[in-house]
Amino acid sequence: MVQEKARVLIVGTGGVGTMSAYALMQGGKADVTAVMRSNYDTAVKNGISIDSIQYGHDIKGFRPTTIVKTVPNVAKEDLKPFDFILVTTKSIPDVSPTVADIIEPAVTPDKTAIVLSQNGLNIEKPIIPRFPSNPIISSVSTVGAKERAPADIFHDDADAQKIGAFQNQSVPQHIAEEAAKKYIGIYNPDGKLDLVYDPDVKRSRWRKLLYNGSFNPIATILRMDTRRMRMCQHIVDDLILPIMFEVLAAARACGVTELTDDLPGKILLNDDMRFEFKPSMCQDIEKGNLFEMENIVGEPLREGEACGVAMPTLRTVYGLLKGLQLQVKESKGLWEPKFTADNPYK
Amino acid sequence: MVQEKARVLIVGTGGVGTMSAYALMQGGKADVTAVMRSNYDTAVKNGISIDSIQYGHDIKGFRPTTIVKTVPNVAKEDLKPFDFILVTTKSIPDVSPTVADIIEPAVTPDKTAIVLSQNGLNIEKPIIPRFPSNPIISSVSTVGAKERAPADIFHDDADAQKIGAFQNQSVPQHIAEEAAKKYIGIYNPDGKLDLVYDPDVKRSRWRKLLYNGSFNPIATILRMDTRRMRMCQHIVDDLILPIMFEVLAAARACGVTELTDDLPGKILLNDDMRFEFKPSMCQDIEKGNLFEMENIVGEPLREGEACGVAMPTLRTVYGLLKGLQLQVKESKGLWEPKFTADNPYK
Repeated sequence: MVQEKARVLIVGTGGVGTMSAYALMQGGKADVTAVMRSNYDTAVKNGISIDSIQYGHDIKGFRPTTIVKTVPNVAKEDLKPFDFILVTTKSIPDVSPTVADIIEPAVTPDKTAIVLSQNGLNIEKPIIPRFPSNPIISSVSTVGAKERAPADIFHDDADAQKIGAFQNQSVPQHIAEEAAKKYIGIYNPDGKLDLVYDPDVKRSRWRKLLYNGSFNPIATILRMDTRRMRMCQHIVDDLILPIMFEVLAAARACGVTELTDDLPGKILLNDDMRFEFKPSMCQDIEKGNLFEMENIVGEPLREGEACGVAMPTLRTVYGLLKGLQLQVKESKGLWEPKFTADNPYK
Repeated sequence: MVQEKARVLIVGTGGVGTMSAYALMQGGKADVTAVMRSNYDTAVKNGISIDSIQYGHDIKGFRPTTIVKTVPNVAKEDLKPFDFILVTTKSIPDVSPTVADIIEPAVTPDKTAIVLSQNGLNIEKPIIPRFPSNPIISSVSTVGAKERAPADIFHDDADAQKIGAFQNQSVPQHIAEEAAKKYIGIYNPDGKLDLVYDPDVKRSRWRKLLYNGSFNPIATILRMDTRRMRMCQHIVDDLILPIMFEVLAAARACGVTELTDDLPGKILLNDDMRFEFKPSMCQDIEKGNLFEMENIVGEPLREGEACGVAMPTLRTVYGLLKGLQLQVKESKGLWEPKFTADNPYK
């Protein structure tokens, strides 16, 4: 008897989402529905082109099982429920619609597991109360992939993920953990990929924040690549390392005690310094896009300060990011420069 | 008997320097030599055009007594010594040549008083040891004037200055104070201008730093006008006010005790909010110019921290400014992105 394929919906089919679609299709255990927007027409007509470090440099005409233009409404369209929804959109909770708003029509209660493959802390917090009966799964990914033109993906860093269940009061933990393991099973059935089960999502996310919470915002404010940042000792000593140690202290105060004092120094040596690399947050601001500041900077700051940790460097950086994000919002018509009634500067 | 006119050299004949030249010529007590560079040819040929809030909107053909292209070498050229050198250049001690280097050929020991009309703290520190027998005078100016084209000045905020002697171990204080008063006398002989003698230069400079040390660097990092900054409560509450209170605490620790706790709140209401205004530091970075970060941010930070004052917001801001200045330096060929021998990131 042929085992029925899992139904997976991917929301956010840019570089990362497409490479997940490709891996899931390769594995042969999933039917993949991809939501595509700006790249829909090209993908439907010609399929997706991929230049991949992992699967080959000249892949043409890749097509997920189904390509749709909007998130399907499972109930109204009388669709078979999705087993998994993989979310790879940016997490920008400071504007509408939120991730929860976007995926809502496709979530079947008690059934669909929601896989959040986004950076930062507390991304699950607004999802849990909206979908209290659904397992919420974390993917901490270090894949490098971007869409260099519509439906044309450049994949330059291998797919590697830590996957586990978020802490979630409303779904029994073993059910969420089983869902996470099942997801790994259909994503990586033959074990070829570097996908590991993550029993401690919180730790993995705090650990990654040491890098993302420091290099990303400083790169964004300075519009500077991480190679130049390391060449300037002041940036390392006065900004990057202080933030890393603030995040480390916050992580410990929040119960993540396994991170050691030598970690910031090790992370500084992480990147391949032959290349100039700008973190995605910096790429976003340079493109005039809203950037992911709340989960990568705001939430660690709030968590740490709530535990009494002094985080003066990150606090200042957060204030500056708010100002920069406001300018992006203004450019998109989401903020208007005017004095409010209770503002004293008139 | 006709009183001999004072010989004044002005170094830095942009907006502020030109308006000082104009005031000094109007007063009739000074021969003014102006060093002009990019605007030399136009000024010599047609004179300088001025649109002034104070002297008239259609002034044409203004010429200082003498216009020169480089700082004169008084000894070599056998010139009569200058009584005063007014310096209105930017203070950018992090690159060569410094102000001391620039003015050196024109300074006659024991004779020339050096008037520093630049923002920030400790601008006199590198000047005093280079010219130990010369009075060093401070001008804290709130004039608004800029060169909108070569030798075309727009003067939109009245000339107002506090003028006094810097503390200087190597020249008796009463001699420096007399020089300051004499300068006021030739600049403002009929008392029409808002020029006041400043018996406490240190206090005036720290006081002005509450504004300049907060609004200038934040505007520079965000490329944002001060009106929008005030519209965003986060920028005021999380950046501007914390920096003002840090500078206030530093000032007090450095012995300036007269500044009161209500000052930051008052300064926030200072500017005319009908207009969008970007501080000069922000204008400089937007033009791709080096900006005055050391005297406006670096020195207050060092002074405060040396006295044990915690200044975490300004410290972070200073680190970011260093990164931004480095990019300006790179664009001008003053810094090259490469790893040094002792840098571990290779």
